[in-house]
This record gives sequence, C-alpha cells and structure tokens, in this order.
Amino acid sequence: MARVVVNVMPKAEILDPQGQAIVGALGRLGHTGISDVRQGKRFELEVDDSISDSALAEIAESLLANTVIEDWSVTREPE
Amino acid sequence: MARVVVNVMPKAEILDPQGQAIVGALGRLGHTGISDVRQGKRFELEVDDSISDSALAEIAESLLANTVIEDWSVTREPE
Repeated sequence: MARVVVNVMPKAEILDPQGQAIVGALGRLGHTGISDVRQGKRFELEVDDSISDSALAEIAESLLANTVIEDWSVTREPE
Repeated sequence: MARVVVNVMPKAEILDPQGQAIVGALGRLGHTGISDVRQGKRFELEVDDSISDSALAEIAESLLANTVIEDWSVTREPE
C-alpha cells in the first residue's frame, strides 16, 4: 500500500470567492500580511503499489478535478 | 512574498462520506486498487516574509480548520 495525494486548485484565471472571503475575514480579525488566499481540495488515496501513474492521472482528471476550472497534481508520498 | 500551504483533513476517527463516495465511484468506473480516499481542503496563502509561524498556526486553527473534526498542517513552500 502507498499513499497518493491529489491536489486540486482553481485555475489562476478563475475567480475564487471562497478564498477572497477568507482574505476579507483575516483583515477583519486583525491578521495583516496575507495578500491572497486560494482554496482548493486535497485528496489522500490509499492505493496498491501496482497502480500506475497513468491510472492515477486519469482518476484525477476524470473524477477528482473539473478541468474546465481546476488544475490538479498527483504526488506519491514517500513510504 | 512567500507561499504558505495549509492542509486541512478530516481526523482519522471521523467518517468522511465524500471520500467514501469517491471510493464507490472509482469501483463503478472500473478503477481497482484504491482502498480508501479522504477528502480535505488545501489553502494556498500569499504572505509577507515577516509573518510568523505562530500567526500562521493561529490562522489555520481559528479560521481555516474546525479542530473538532479536522487536523491541519502548515507548510512554507520553498521560494
């Protein structure tokens, strides 16, 4: 078994209202020095060692991310 | 400016129905070899270099995560 992390983030050119809401809240709470926040998703998958990188890419692209508005990346965690 | 990543994941003892739905969908789509999926959140913050680790921890704990049901971690990305 191995752990794979898939990160899914809104594309840079896509507005991220959740992230902007967090920036606003940080300002109201007195936290200065944070100029931008983007909110995305993190998936942690427990996979068999036999699973291929291409299978993981297909899962990320077809099921976990909406590639119209989101970018994704797959990382195998060190054992 | 530096980039900070905050990962927020459901605690291990908390059920994750979104992750379980993904496991089910993977099976129906013919992807074998994935035994568990946990879905969490990833925040990417653009911060001043002056911001302290303790300020980042407070932001993660008080605003980004619900510490009753979620664990969080803060990572400074390499420049």
